[in-house]
Amino acid sequence: MKKIVILGAGFAGLECCKALRGAPAAIALVDRQNHHLFQPLLYQVASAGLAAPEIAHPIRSVFAGREEVSVLMDEVGSVDLAARAVVTRSRRLDYDYLVLALGVKTGYFGHADWEAHAGGLKTLDDATRIRREVLLAFEKAEVCDDPAEKARLMTIVIVGGGPTGVELAGAFAELARHVLRRDFRRIDTRQARIVLVEAAPRLLSMMDEELSAYTKRKLESMGVTVRTGCAVRDVRGGVVELPGETLEAGNIVWAAGVEAVPLTRTLGVETDAAGRLMVEKDLSLPGHPEVFAVGDVAHCVDAAGTRVPGLCPAAIQMGRHVAGILRAELAAPEEPAGRPERAGFRYFDKGSMATIGRSAAVAASAGLRFRGFVAWLMWLFVHLLFLVGFRNKLAVLLQWFYAYLRYRRGARIITGVAPESRPATFSRFAG
Amino acid sequence: MKKIVILGAGFAGLECCKALRGAPAAIALVDRQNHHLFQPLLYQVASAGLAAPEIAHPIRSVFAGREEVSVLMDEVGSVDLAARAVVTRSRRLDYDYLVLALGVKTGYFGHADWEAHAGGLKTLDDATRIRREVLLAFEKAEVCDDPAEKARLMTIVIVGGGPTGVELAGAFAELARHVLRRDFRRIDTRQARIVLVEAAPRLLSMMDEELSAYTKRKLESMGVTVRTGCAVRDVRGGVVELPGETLEAGNIVWAAGVEAVPLTRTLGVETDAAGRLMVEKDLSLPGHPEVFAVGDVAHCVDAAGTRVPGLCPAAIQMGRHVAGILRAELAAPEEPAGRPERAGFRYFDKGSMATIGRSAAVAASAGLRFRGFVAWLMWLFVHLLFLVGFRNKLAVLLQWFYAYLRYRRGARIITGVAPESRPATFSRFAG
Repeated sequence: MKKIVILGAGFAGLECCKALRGAPAAIALVDRQNHHLFQPLLYQVASAGLAAPEIAHPIRSVFAGREEVSVLMDEVGSVDLAARAVVTRSRRLDYDYLVLALGVKTGYFGHADWEAHAGGLKTLDDATRIRREVLLAFEKAEVCDDPAEKARLMTIVIVGGGPTGVELAGAFAELARHVLRRDFRRIDTRQARIVLVEAAPRLLSMMDEELSAYTKRKLESMGVTVRTGCAVRDVRGGVVELPGETLEAGNIVWAAGVEAVPLTRTLGVETDAAGRLMVEKDLSLPGHPEVFAVGDVAHCVDAAGTRVPGLCPAAIQMGRHVAGILRAELAAPEEPAGRPERAGFRYFDKGSMATIGRSAAVAASAGLRFRGFVAWLMWLFVHLLFLVGFRNKLAVLLQWFYAYLRYRRGARIITGVAPESRPATFSRFAG
Repeated sequence: MKKIVILGAGFAGLECCKALRGAPAAIALVDRQNHHLFQPLLYQVASAGLAAPEIAHPIRSVFAGREEVSVLMDEVGSVDLAARAVVTRSRRLDYDYLVLALGVKTGYFGHADWEAHAGGLKTLDDATRIRREVLLAFEKAEVCDDPAEKARLMTIVIVGGGPTGVELAGAFAELARHVLRRDFRRIDTRQARIVLVEAAPRLLSMMDEELSAYTKRKLESMGVTVRTGCAVRDVRGGVVELPGETLEAGNIVWAAGVEAVPLTRTLGVETDAAGRLMVEKDLSLPGHPEVFAVGDVAHCVDAAGTRVPGLCPAAIQMGRHVAGILRAELAAPEEPAGRPERAGFRYFDKGSMATIGRSAAVAASAGLRFRGFVAWLMWLFVHLLFLVGFRNKLAVLLQWFYAYLRYRRGARIITGVAPESRPATFSRFAG
């Protein structure tokens, strides 16, 4: 029986493994986490709207009924394309086919030292860390007597005006202006400063200018300070240096870029500047028809000449495409002569969308543009549709509905606080 | 305006503060956490049934509309009864009335060194730690080639046969036998060994023998090994020493005892062996009519001569009782002569209950005994009734219903794993 190894259980890897149902192969699906993460809603965990388990699904349970699939919670050490073997932290996995669905990580454009001061948002631990730090900053501001420090604590800088940055900025603005408004006694959370910094001339640059302009106006009406055409010069502890402006912030979130995991540069194949793997039209690596790259880790110009974007729908389509190729070849006779011609991948652009805030979003699809409440309903519908797992859908819908009605956030819980980082307190009775 | 300081926002402190609504006083409510925790369901977070935020509620939002209440997230350093002042990590809170609602922490009967090897279950961080470690143990067992180590990883020892121990044992048994059953390829999770150890002759000793016997039978029918009349001799890393038996376990959970926080022994007033504060019939400290102890931290024999148990209903009743005394005295003229006679606290015993597993529980109330499905429905009803916060009730009900129908757990998510503690992997393809 052929051996297929899939590295990564994000949208691309998970979909590829799902689409291989019934194929005559033994499949090993390797991921560092035990859960598949619904990345598009990660910002809601970071902004206390949802609990972590509500946007994650145990990988094992997805394939509980698939005896031929063994899920391994492990980390990949190296890949030997010549020997057709993957070496994980402790074992060796030989393969006949390898699917690289490693995804991407937060990228700092060569400024690795900025990461310590401006964490990214790619994992559940990232999201709960951001939630903790942002909520703690308000707690510290409440008990702080120094106006300057108080202002710093109540400042959140988000670097990167893509969908994640826009969604975080909107969510934090609502958190401060509505959700927390009546909770504190010594600070007015409506005074919180949310700054969204984008190097490009406009937000959501993948969308047309009209939607970008609407997004900027909408965010500003929510109290967000938007700085476009503004490249970050430096990031230090609690400080973001912009051209001609220094921002002091209690929280700095980096949503400006991604890059491939270092592993991709060790394979001896061509990568782009961000370390993504250059792939053939069939998504295989040049010179390695038995190895495929799918999802964000692939730099793909599809059969129609379109540069495939790093979006969930693209990852899912790529995973499905490779599964189709594998099914055909597993069914075909051994000798290459008998190998069916491989179809080139064609990306079907379903469009893109981003939510800005309560009943406001932007969406572009099939040449049409939507904004405001209609776009928000579309966004809600699409995201619920994609959410993995019945229970998640219901629980998430329930909470959105509740948050929408009551302007409240159920997950406003601080956990995992190191004692030394707890806030100092004040006393209105101070002797 | 009189100053009231309440230390602790558990059931007793929260209820006391709630019941003081409208009283002419400035209230400071101090807690180390930013949330009130619904302790009775903590075991469900530990056993992956619920997400942490679903059983917690932000303290601030409970008192959002109460301008006279300032919530402080802080830790208490010391209390000076003579000077009528509380010193927190950084400030001083003077008070006219002090309510000590500090609760209790996990107690090891003088074996403090056991804590490192057998953590307790009192906070959300405890619960997520247990969830992580138990789920990780199964992941490690799946990729482990040593039968002995595999067996150890799949053994969970729970020390303490009270409600928490019984509920944890039942929940872990269901997790292993039903929820995870089809998720793994190299281990049969039904082979997992759950051992419940109790020093007393029977489980749930607060209930009558018939219910204890039923609980033991039920747990054993679920595959739990029950050791009663069995006092732990020693706990080391991964090892529990019992009389004549050594248990090797991948996880050891301590649910055997509680003790008051060390602070109580620094007040210069009488405490019991566990450090609980001895109180007068009105719940004040002897010689300090302006200081009260409520909830688990109080050692109280009520006006009827009943030793008040450490249960939520008792804590709530005590908090309400003290609020009543304070309301009367805040309304009364200053001079002691004018101070109204204080009523003694009378505990109203609503009974006790514990859930064992899917549609099985035991309950004793008003001389009546219930068990099985009826008791489980009672348990479900009572706990939902008590859960703080509309949204929590709905989300929790939804998940219970789903878990009940589908034998699934939504919160089966591993987070916060240190890289070095990730499982090693195996390969069915190993070369």
